[in-house]
Amino acid sequence: MMKLGDLAAALGTPCLGNPEVCITGVAEFETATEAQVALAIGPRREQLATSQAAAFIVAADTVTDADRGRYNLLPSAYPKVAFARAIQLLHVPSRLPEGIAPEACLAPDVIVGAEPTIGPRVVIGAGVRLGARVTIHPGVVIGRHVTIGDETTIFPNVTIYDGVRIGARCIVHAGAVIGADGFGYARDADGTHVKIPQIGTVVIEDDVEIGANSTVDRATLGETRIGRGTKIDNLVHIAHNCTIGEESLLAALVGLSGGVKIGRRVTLAGQVGANPQVEVGDGATIAGKAGITKSVPGGETYAGMPITTLREWKRERIYAARLPYRLPDIEARLTAVETRLASVLPMLAQSPAESEE
Amino acid sequence: MMKLGDLAAALGTPCLGNPEVCITGVAEFETATEAQVALAIGPRREQLATSQAAAFIVAADTVTDADRGRYNLLPSAYPKVAFARAIQLLHVPSRLPEGIAPEACLAPDVIVGAEPTIGPRVVIGAGVRLGARVTIHPGVVIGRHVTIGDETTIFPNVTIYDGVRIGARCIVHAGAVIGADGFGYARDADGTHVKIPQIGTVVIEDDVEIGANSTVDRATLGETRIGRGTKIDNLVHIAHNCTIGEESLLAALVGLSGGVKIGRRVTLAGQVGANPQVEVGDGATIAGKAGITKSVPGGETYAGMPITTLREWKRERIYAARLPYRLPDIEARLTAVETRLASVLPMLAQSPAESEE
Amino acid sequence: MMKLGDLAAALGTPCLGNPEVCITGVAEFETATEAQVALAIGPRREQLATSQAAAFIVAADTVTDADRGRYNLLPSAYPKVAFARAIQLLHVPSRLPEGIAPEACLAPDVIVGAEPTIGPRVVIGAGVRLGARVTIHPGVVIGRHVTIGDETTIFPNVTIYDGVRIGARCIVHAGAVIGADGFGYARDADGTHVKIPQIGTVVIEDDVEIGANSTVDRATLGETRIGRGTKIDNLVHIAHNCTIGEESLLAALVGLSGGVKIGRRVTLAGQVGANPQVEVGDGATIAGKAGITKSVPGGETYAGMPITTLREWKRERIYAARLPYRLPDIEARLTAVETRLASVLPMLAQSPAESEE
Repeated sequence: MMKLGDLAAALGTPCLGNPEVCITGVAEFETATEAQVALAIGPRREQLATSQAAAFIVAADTVTDADRGRYNLLPSAYPKVAFARAIQLLHVPSRLPEGIAPEACLAPDVIVGAEPTIGPRVVIGAGVRLGARVTIHPGVVIGRHVTIGDETTIFPNVTIYDGVRIGARCIVHAGAVIGADGFGYARDADGTHVKIPQIGTVVIEDDVEIGANSTVDRATLGETRIGRGTKIDNLVHIAHNCTIGEESLLAALVGLSGGVKIGRRVTLAGQVGANPQVEVGDGATIAGKAGITKSVPGGETYAGMPITTLREWKRERIYAARLPYRLPDIEARLTAVETRLASVLPMLAQSPAESEE
Repeated sequence: MMKLGDLAAALGTPCLGNPEVCITGVAEFETATEAQVALAIGPRREQLATSQAAAFIVAADTVTDADRGRYNLLPSAYPKVAFARAIQLLHVPSRLPEGIAPEACLAPDVIVGAEPTIGPRVVIGAGVRLGARVTIHPGVVIGRHVTIGDETTIFPNVTIYDGVRIGARCIVHAGAVIGADGFGYARDADGTHVKIPQIGTVVIEDDVEIGANSTVDRATLGETRIGRGTKIDNLVHIAHNCTIGEESLLAALVGLSGGVKIGRRVTLAGQVGANPQVEVGDGATIAGKAGITKSVPGGETYAGMPITTLREWKRERIYAARLPYRLPDIEARLTAVETRLASVLPMLAQSPAESEE
Repeated sequence: MMKLGDLAAALGTPCLGNPEVCITGVAEFETATEAQVALAIGPRREQLATSQAAAFIVAADTVTDADRGRYNLLPSAYPKVAFARAIQLLHVPSRLPEGIAPEACLAPDVIVGAEPTIGPRVVIGAGVRLGARVTIHPGVVIGRHVTIGDETTIFPNVTIYDGVRIGARCIVHAGAVIGADGFGYARDADGTHVKIPQIGTVVIEDDVEIGANSTVDRATLGETRIGRGTKIDNLVHIAHNCTIGEESLLAALVGLSGGVKIGRRVTLAGQVGANPQVEVGDGATIAGKAGITKSVPGGETYAGMPITTLREWKRERIYAARLPYRLPDIEARLTAVETRLASVLPMLAQSPAESEE
């Protein structure tokens, strides 16, 4: 619980309205009660009167004189960031290190940093180094010679294969698998698939979040790399030798083939797929279900399978949807023209011009 | 083993034929032997003579006088339901509670209902309440303050995060993850993604089944909810704040974005995706791989990306497939018409009508 | 470390160049140093001068007189196979059996073959038979009456349900789930879904590899079968009663509905889906994201949703992309023709030919 004025100060926003209001938490706009703060952006910005919230986090550029005195407002140039920080302040307890559970199973030479939490049923292999304040939930299995940076959290039943390197402040959600073999085979004379041993590794840079049951395969040779600050949703597949730049977003069920290069601040929406070796430039956005069949430059939005610009894709879709109506119409008009013309031509049959056709 | 007459009585169907036949089990139509019962619906209904089965479960409205005396039949208005119940009766042993394995690791205050089966390597956090006759398989990790209803089964290596509520008679298959953080970030001034802490929860109502390695994320605020009787296949992703109504079916690899609302008795076929916040009305069916790009009313079948009615989608597909043939044909006819017309016009060049063009 | 001549002998290739060169390992073409061997196929074959590698594995039919004396080459008719074997020789240590960890939890009647490695936190149910030299990583849960063949490796946190049979030399990656219930329900009079108990099983033949977090469901009755030598990537879903032939490849995020039959040496690219019961003939290739909406013969490449030949799909896509340009053009030309014709017809109005229209 804190006073609204104190919350505003902590968030670095002005406090328009009564700074003495007691705030117990953050809630949804529709269900907030008179001791809770809510986010009011988009259409909700116009509906403040419909919410019981004590105060609203709003976009700074939407505040008008009419608001003053009517509502308690915390205006921010980045209202979603202020909202995120308010939840953090009001709802997320500080981490309390719990030590190493007696039921955890660590190789004798594992190096554990300060203030660890390592739950029961965790298995950690030889040569592993864990940073300070790591949290390893129950059921996690960590192979040999893995390194994990400070303040990283690994949720239950995650598997991390030998040699993987994970940075600081990362979050790996339950069931994710980091460092499994890439999908690489060579076809032999008799058609048999000979496995190409996958001896590369995976490097996850700092501040990366990886969703539940996602998989990041190790490189054949070299490394698969996820750049700093990149966030990966659930059930995403990153194949061997992919490289993803910093601060990119990959939504659920995205699948990247081997050797794909994704730039910085790229957004891949849900169920996007990418062909082997293609590259996506910095700042590109790829719409849901698109198939990245070739490399595309950054700074643009793409869609479709095969991929094209969102603009082209929309045009195509509009034309495709109209086609069942326009094509018969065109054919009918064409037939009418042909018929008329056929009726005209005999009248001119004696003309020398006609003979040239 | 039971007599056919007793099986019919247990299933609540008539027994046409010899009620004294001994039935040892249920088998596939093609491989059933003379002591087994098989389901004969669809094309198989016409092929009874090709099966060795002792008896057939058939649709009640397909029974004719010609069948009597030739085959042993169990006619049912819901033959697949009768088939399901026959398998249950003849093949599924009663649950025998096995107690709590000594290798399970339960917080001291966990409340366990009557007749539990809790396997080795299970980890259960503080404040958890388990109903009667629950089965928790090995390797399951249950966070703090989770509640699980009576007769629910959790298969191996499932992870359930803090605070999740699961109803009675649910089945959660191996590797599923319930309650991981939603994929929510706010972009800061410098382009960094600030994590929005996900402090909501997940509520799974009674009689829900969740497939292997599926993921149901917790809400940002509030709850993600799966309605009573809904069945979810493997590798499905349900994002934060989704709501799914009762008795719906979600096939494998479906991905729902944040805040999607799916109605009652909706069917989503494999690999369907949905944009954030869209709604699907009661009784709708969405064909495989469709992209639900906007809200759609219930009671209708949809397909395509972007989504449209199945009827429209089929028309579009037919026209798209014909286009490579029809478009060149149209262009050739148009050129022919233009050429002919060009040959006609000079002959009429002196006409005043031409000048208006 | 070995001499190049010895490596060539081990790979069964000629050694063009200096057989005395010391080779310490295999590396990527771009980063290889002077004691490493690299694969040089495709465009890299023409760029040998840009690599520091000590030697190159190349396609035998690309060797020319110009190469001799300039580079150390190991020519092979199957260069990727030679590359795979070189990695195996130079980088993969021999398996050292580690026995059964004291923290593993095996039912008393489990039969374990020679030289096992069974890690901590493994749980194995009654009636299980493990072949010789199996490796079962930590966190694996194996149900009752499962059989696993010689030299098979199961990575961490895999779940294998009761009764599943896995062959020899298989590899199952972390988090995979083999034998969960198929997605089968019968709709009852009141719309409730009655679960059809899934009493069939899964058979994985020899030399199969299954990717991380993939799921292979058990059959309703009978079996789901994965043929010898087939390789399955991550996050793949194989439904109940599917049959996959020998030496096929299924890329990531593929989803097969119930009862699908995939032939031998079939390739399914990423995110392909298949409708229930469809069949794909031997040697077929299905392009990424295709929807196999009907059965297709073997020996051909397919694409699209609904599926068609790759050739047809490409034609369709080309026409669809051009349509926004060609359709307006056609309509403009047609209007021009109609206008001209309209201007001509009045001049001929008195003609009897016109009356027939």
